[in-house]
Amino acid sequence: MFARTKEILKKARTIWALDHASSLMDWDLEVNMPVEGVQERGIAASEIAVLRQKLLLDEELSSLIEKAEKEELDDYERGLLRVLKREIRIAKSLPPDLVQELTRVTQEAKVVWREAREKDDYSKFKPYLERIVELEKKVADFLGYEKHPYDALLDLHEEGLKTDDVQRIFSSLEPGIRKVLSKITNFYGKHWLEEQRYDVEAMKLLNLEVLRILGYPLGSRSRIDVSAHPFTIHMGIRDVRITTRYEGYDFKRSFFSTLHEFGHALYELQVDDSLMATPLSKGVSLGIHESQSRFWENMIGRSIEFVRGVENILKDKLGFLRDVPAEEIYRYFNIVRPSLIRTEADEVTYNLHIILRFKIEFGMIDGSIKVDEIPEEWDNLMEELLGIRPESYRDGVLQDIHWSMGDIGYFPTYTLGNVISAQIREHMMREIPDLHEKVRKMDFEQVKEYLKERIHRWGSVYSPKELIKRSFKEEIRPEPFLDYLEKKYLSVHQN
Amino acid sequence: MFARTKEILKKARTIWALDHASSLMDWDLEVNMPVEGVQERGIAASEIAVLRQKLLLDEELSSLIEKAEKEELDDYERGLLRVLKREIRIAKSLPPDLVQELTRVTQEAKVVWREAREKDDYSKFKPYLERIVELEKKVADFLGYEKHPYDALLDLHEEGLKTDDVQRIFSSLEPGIRKVLSKITNFYGKHWLEEQRYDVEAMKLLNLEVLRILGYPLGSRSRIDVSAHPFTIHMGIRDVRITTRYEGYDFKRSFFSTLHEFGHALYELQVDDSLMATPLSKGVSLGIHESQSRFWENMIGRSIEFVRGVENILKDKLGFLRDVPAEEIYRYFNIVRPSLIRTEADEVTYNLHIILRFKIEFGMIDGSIKVDEIPEEWDNLMEELLGIRPESYRDGVLQDIHWSMGDIGYFPTYTLGNVISAQIREHMMREIPDLHEKVRKMDFEQVKEYLKERIHRWGSVYSPKELIKRSFKEEIRPEPFLDYLEKKYLSVHQN
Repeated sequence: MFARTKEILKKARTIWALDHASSLMDWDLEVNMPVEGVQERGIAASEIAVLRQKLLLDEELSSLIEKAEKEELDDYERGLLRVLKREIRIAKSLPPDLVQELTRVTQEAKVVWREAREKDDYSKFKPYLERIVELEKKVADFLGYEKHPYDALLDLHEEGLKTDDVQRIFSSLEPGIRKVLSKITNFYGKHWLEEQRYDVEAMKLLNLEVLRILGYPLGSRSRIDVSAHPFTIHMGIRDVRITTRYEGYDFKRSFFSTLHEFGHALYELQVDDSLMATPLSKGVSLGIHESQSRFWENMIGRSIEFVRGVENILKDKLGFLRDVPAEEIYRYFNIVRPSLIRTEADEVTYNLHIILRFKIEFGMIDGSIKVDEIPEEWDNLMEELLGIRPESYRDGVLQDIHWSMGDIGYFPTYTLGNVISAQIREHMMREIPDLHEKVRKMDFEQVKEYLKERIHRWGSVYSPKELIKRSFKEEIRPEPFLDYLEKKYLSVHQN
Repeated sequence: MFARTKEILKKARTIWALDHASSLMDWDLEVNMPVEGVQERGIAASEIAVLRQKLLLDEELSSLIEKAEKEELDDYERGLLRVLKREIRIAKSLPPDLVQELTRVTQEAKVVWREAREKDDYSKFKPYLERIVELEKKVADFLGYEKHPYDALLDLHEEGLKTDDVQRIFSSLEPGIRKVLSKITNFYGKHWLEEQRYDVEAMKLLNLEVLRILGYPLGSRSRIDVSAHPFTIHMGIRDVRITTRYEGYDFKRSFFSTLHEFGHALYELQVDDSLMATPLSKGVSLGIHESQSRFWENMIGRSIEFVRGVENILKDKLGFLRDVPAEEIYRYFNIVRPSLIRTEADEVTYNLHIILRFKIEFGMIDGSIKVDEIPEEWDNLMEELLGIRPESYRDGVLQDIHWSMGDIGYFPTYTLGNVISAQIREHMMREIPDLHEKVRKMDFEQVKEYLKERIHRWGSVYSPKELIKRSFKEEIRPEPFLDYLEKKYLSVHQN
């Protein structure tokens, strides 16, 4: 393993070390940092980013890679070259001026976006979005593409993902989801548990207890902390940290945030030891990552078996649940309700929010949708897809931070994750026919082992598409997700 | 400012960023890191250390420095060149093989030392110490010295400090301290408060309250956390963090640890803003740093005025103090008792422990004391200086970790700090004649301003000796310290 790429690995290890430091700096910024430390942290982070770029573009590294490519390599070595070459190609393609300009514009745009959202004033944000779209088009041109500039932006966020893939998946998801949605007629109102306040300390204990049962290695290889926006961060395969949030009401938010991040963390924690401190030691892509978080959050966490499995813990920690039957908690966990805000959307409607964004992004880059027209387009699509219309920019086009950060081509990875999570579940149930029973007993050993063998242990050795192909002998496909939705939601909403 | 050294500063900023990251990694290791993260943290830290060395020894940097030296420079620019040249000189002097060997030996030695101490077996540690002394002699030879190889090791830990300086100071301290000690006859027994248990949560609130009154900028520019060995760490002048400890009994340990680290932190926090993200942004040396921590811990914290100032807070948080008069708390804070362990020593006896170590270190490097003879030498010196004799290696020669880490020439900086703290106090009292009254009222504005003007704001602009000379128009001298001890302890122990 890596016998023919030792020299490359040595150079890559220095880059890995800088990434380790940067991750810790990011984590610390969200979790610990004294507020006024922000300026120095910013200087340090950008210095380290520039240094990392220099190491990546070191000519010696490139010529070592070129030489190694001529040898007969194993999968690990090929993976190493693939990951490094991809990074180098991207770094080399983008002129420093463009990167700098994009950094400058998005830094301003983020601030302006916040203001615009607060004042519900799209016109404030518009010139920035126009500039960002222009710059992103340039990014696509410099990166290159075969069919559509949006391909280049997709690939930037999800290695190998093409507009055609997204369209293929979305074109069957859209009618499928709308069909499911049209059959759900009850449960659109507020559930009392959504407004029920909880004790934060009790909720913390509840999350810890659930994590303990899931085998999250708290203290030995991981931590859980609190931050405004929950996230998972990888310092290495033996140090993966998650955060969660405590709003003080609607306990499922905190509960599923925690399960979601646990899914991300488990991926990183189960990467094979031999990949430690190499560029292959991380989850391979946003899409595959999201499939892991969604698997634990939705496929496992929102199942009736899981509710029965955690019922006693829930009732023990949250007194107000004492007389609530498991079926009622299950229903609360699975409320479906078309809503304006993506981050609050349920399993059924969530992907419609993504489809909307994809359509607009594609049009922006394509030139068929002018930045001027986006709000109108947004509202129309909301009405078409979800049957509701925003009454403000705040609840519409101004709700997400992503575009202000220049992240165009990112949203589709969310849906990709949802789709893959159901695909994994379908395959897993063939190999673990008593999966339901196991979840009911909170016995996750085999589930974790399955995920490890098929996904986790490989880190970034295989590209996302290769990995799925290799582990499940098929392409990424949306049918299992639609099948899952139909079976689940048509029964949930039949009582 | 820095007009003629812009290019140098730019290169130095990258090194600063790596130091920022390394500091955070060290802090995290002690405070947060999941235990199994240690291997990856080790890899990352050593990669970053090697990279830092490369940047420091970059020839372009050296030639920029050479060029700048020919220009007319201001104090800041001269300071910048001084600090960088010193680092480069040290890095260039030591052959990589020697540094590697020293790293390897001390890593093992640290483990062996722990074992040897546990088993009270000097013979286990002896071969390692022999090897370390050999290597440190080589270090001294490569660094170069005029008079004595120990000079080179001292300078490594305290810029510009010479054996002659240490001997000059110690030769008047030793008899002076022994004179004070000989006059103290009472108070050698245990005080009941040393065994009194406290509630950790209450003690935390007490420390926080005192820090608040001292103006420690918690949350905005600093933090306090818990670690096994308290320390202060600098991520930047707007992010300085301290840790403290809670043993659960003898509350002065936690209390004075906190004050001690506050002193270190205040130094870094009051460095001038214009030095941000430069090599001058840190406290200039261990000795000057220790003068700041000791100033707050001892000169301020252990004074009767401070006890009166915090009396109400102490009594509010620690119920068992309710009926204890301030004078009694003062006496508990200032118990003098010759003891075997340096880290538990009081203000009076502490420096005798350092003098002992200095004599042995000097002899080790000089060759006049063989590693074989150290335990005997240690015990004899203990008897001579403190009138007590260890009955085990554990309580004698094996008590400190420092030698196992290759830190020879470090101990004297502790005493240097004590000496300078009293010197600062003497000068301060001329400028703030109502200092006692101010402390009594817990009004520290002027004290902090004084320390800022004379010491803190300068960061590393001036070398330690220059700084003292410039701020107090005199050399470092031990008389104020002896004077302080005599006045204080002969009166404490007269009731």
